[in-house]
Amino acid sequence: MNILLVGATGQMGRAVSDLAGSEIVAGIGRSASDFPVYETFKEVTEDVDVIIDFSTPDLLEDMLNFAEKNKVPVVIATTGYSEAHVSLIEDISNNVPIVYAGNYSLGINVMEQLAEQIARTLKNFDIEITETHHKFKKDAPSGTANMLFDAVNHGRDGKLHKLEGRSGMYESRDQNEVGISSLRGGTAVGEHSVFFYGEDEIIELKHTAFSKRIFAKGALEAAEFLVQKEPGLYTVTDVLEG
Amino acid sequence: MNILLVGATGQMGRAVSDLAGSEIVAGIGRSASDFPVYETFKEVTEDVDVIIDFSTPDLLEDMLNFAEKNKVPVVIATTGYSEAHVSLIEDISNNVPIVYAGNYSLGINVMEQLAEQIARTLKNFDIEITETHHKFKKDAPSGTANMLFDAVNHGRDGKLHKLEGRSGMYESRDQNEVGISSLRGGTAVGEHSVFFYGEDEIIELKHTAFSKRIFAKGALEAAEFLVQKEPGLYTVTDVLEG
Amino acid sequence: MNILLVGATGQMGRAVSDLAGSEIVAGIGRSASDFPVYETFKEVTEDVDVIIDFSTPDLLEDMLNFAEKNKVPVVIATTGYSEAHVSLIEDISNNVPIVYAGNYSLGINVMEQLAEQIARTLKNFDIEITETHHKFKKDAPSGTANMLFDAVNHGRDGKLHKLEGRSGMYESRDQNEVGISSLRGGTAVGEHSVFFYGEDEIIELKHTAFSKRIFAKGALEAAEFLVQKEPGLYTVTDVLEG
Amino acid sequence: MNILLVGATGQMGRAVSDLAGSEIVAGIGRSASDFPVYETFKEVTEDVDVIIDFSTPDLLEDMLNFAEKNKVPVVIATTGYSEAHVSLIEDISNNVPIVYAGNYSLGINVMEQLAEQIARTLKNFDIEITETHHKFKKDAPSGTANMLFDAVNHGRDGKLHKLEGRSGMYESRDQNEVGISSLRGGTAVGEHSVFFYGEDEIIELKHTAFSKRIFAKGALEAAEFLVQKEPGLYTVTDVLEG
Repeated sequence: MNILLVGATGQMGRAVSDLAGSEIVAGIGRSASDFPVYETFKEVTEDVDVIIDFSTPDLLEDMLNFAEKNKVPVVIATTGYSEAHVSLIEDISNNVPIVYAGNYSLGINVMEQLAEQIARTLKNFDIEITETHHKFKKDAPSGTANMLFDAVNHGRDGKLHKLEGRSGMYESRDQNEVGISSLRGGTAVGEHSVFFYGEDEIIELKHTAFSKRIFAKGALEAAEFLVQKEPGLYTVTDVLEG
Repeated sequence: MNILLVGATGQMGRAVSDLAGSEIVAGIGRSASDFPVYETFKEVTEDVDVIIDFSTPDLLEDMLNFAEKNKVPVVIATTGYSEAHVSLIEDISNNVPIVYAGNYSLGINVMEQLAEQIARTLKNFDIEITETHHKFKKDAPSGTANMLFDAVNHGRDGKLHKLEGRSGMYESRDQNEVGISSLRGGTAVGEHSVFFYGEDEIIELKHTAFSKRIFAKGALEAAEFLVQKEPGLYTVTDVLEG
Repeated sequence: MNILLVGATGQMGRAVSDLAGSEIVAGIGRSASDFPVYETFKEVTEDVDVIIDFSTPDLLEDMLNFAEKNKVPVVIATTGYSEAHVSLIEDISNNVPIVYAGNYSLGINVMEQLAEQIARTLKNFDIEITETHHKFKKDAPSGTANMLFDAVNHGRDGKLHKLEGRSGMYESRDQNEVGISSLRGGTAVGEHSVFFYGEDEIIELKHTAFSKRIFAKGALEAAEFLVQKEPGLYTVTDVLEG
Repeated sequence: MNILLVGATGQMGRAVSDLAGSEIVAGIGRSASDFPVYETFKEVTEDVDVIIDFSTPDLLEDMLNFAEKNKVPVVIATTGYSEAHVSLIEDISNNVPIVYAGNYSLGINVMEQLAEQIARTLKNFDIEITETHHKFKKDAPSGTANMLFDAVNHGRDGKLHKLEGRSGMYESRDQNEVGISSLRGGTAVGEHSVFFYGEDEIIELKHTAFSKRIFAKGALEAAEFLVQKEPGLYTVTDVLEG
């Protein structure tokens, strides 16, 4: 598998190249590496089987043009897209196979499915979400916590709403509210829990990430999955189900 | 719903009658209660819609005869049956609707399904189970921990085997072994976790019971479910799915 | 030990009388019980060795007058006092032995000491607190979470400040902030954790309460401790250390 | 600080040199590195302020001779010593300052002290220990779990005994037994919990290590501590207390 790595010299790009080694034939980025790194897509002359993208939204258009022209599938792991960006991804996926996801950890994606399922089955259980990240993380809640909220909300037919942080006096907890608590400290890579509280029983579904490698690994598995696929927009769940 | 409560004066029987109140029209047991308590089934003259059984295996035959003769569905929550007992339950379920389960907590039964599902999806993850109970519990591992092992083993097509307690030197962990750790202390009602260990990530699925009421409540929900059903052998999953 | 139980017919009052049985010789409260229950202190004629108080702040003055006049020690477990109330408690403790605490669980009081100690020893670790209670709890954070904050703050010489709920964008975590996350759901009696995050390591100190009995039990142990003591204001730590 | 790194090219040796950089002036080991690596101590000609040792017991005698002759303090992080080895360490510490510990994580050493303290204060609480490590770990329980057992046993005046793995039927839990459960899976760096079970309450003290760096970091802090010290045998607790 010949990989073009977009965002080759960022933190996640390096995690991907550490894992993939000589499968990376070229990169788009701003500094040198063991493989040729270009500033723009038009400089790429290598044979490419698949693109893995951990970069920034401003590269999206050029990347998708390159992918369409060269019939190369794309694994998109960049976040922060506008609605226009997402529409463009959907358009291009008519001609090119694309996986697009906010979190490539296989574990988190399994967790997302299970959380939805529990929310659907145990209709009267109260739901709370917690997430823990290192002290430098800028946003709260994490994107993955929001993804998990969407999953449980889907399982309850869209009736739930978020409460980001609880402080002060309350009449009592609203059955449809989902408290999201964000903890920050040290160097924690990422921990997410979804709690389901019934009468005298609690179910907790918890995921702990110990390194960024798991996101790189998931993106590589998505790349392998894509290589032989028909055009279309795929999820990590599709990757998991093979 | 008119309930005949078998094992009426044991610890779980009392938890059921506390919850069900005047729905209990009679009981089988060894001491007095608010409702008539008999020593044998032939003394029961009350109109009965459903039987709930938290007793001992030696009552099984009389109870199933009573159920079959009177066309009364049965919720069986007794444990410790022999294979012959289980065959008898299966036989009688041709004529009478029966729910038979080792644990009537709705949460535990959801957990069982999820554990099987994760084991099936994340094929390379190592699996471990822990359970915690009060200091007087006599057997280790708990019946529920064994149930959870069966669930993950089913998800891996029967290739797994149990390791009850680790101590000494090992070559390394066998991919198909499932360590089961039993903790005992204080008054803990029951805590079960199934852990799935991947490369640099862990998923934990955890259930905590805060009182025996949850088992009583689950048995009552099973009773309501059974009242209008066709003969057959049902599981708590069937109850959950309505 | 002859106990006068103030707040005899409230939820915690009943938990105390369930445990103490015939040691309760009289109560102050609004409904009847197995022992004589009076509306005012002047009606009490029984011989009293100690007062246990789980009531409301408005009874404080009468109670302390009664205690002082009859030389009876007092275990105060009521919360929500004003500063004037606290001054009064301090004054009267010159003449009568008093234990005054926000939480009588022995476990929580041990945890408080340990949390202070870790905060003092591991000076560079970031600190976060979580607490989980049943869905009807009205205030967030819990009084016990605030007590735990005070403990770690004491260990860091008063330099810390609380952040009750995180939501939105941050420059990065402030080393002196302590996030307090409040979870609500189901019937959870009370769970408190203090987390200490270092570089690549986390220490968690966690307390789980399974019933209100533990608070009743702690108050009874405090009462036994007080009976032979000199006048003074004691803490649960003093009780623990015997 | 000029460091001689013994076991320079093992896994932990590399973790130390990654952190310490140019402070490592020489090493004892079997392969090359950025600094001079020798096979024997007599080849070392560099000026050395302190020795850090993550190697094997067979190097102990030569190392301590070198240390004594050159008046260089030693941080010993090697495990698996015989009683004769330990006597030798004690002897030499009369002439040279030595820190000798089984685990250099500052967090684990704080935990050890706290565990002893809780065991001493909450005399009637049942104690259990769990530890989780990666699938290749050969011994169970871990050395650190044994250290934690020693700590709680010390807090109970030596009355406790270990139960490594529970399986089968029991009369009931013995108050003086401490169950030690060893979990293995994936790439987990190391997680240790000590549980204290009372009536209706549980205290958990938990430590999670996210990388081997914490052990390297602790050894470096011990080295800094030692440089100006009088001869003697020091613990990580001494290092923590400055």
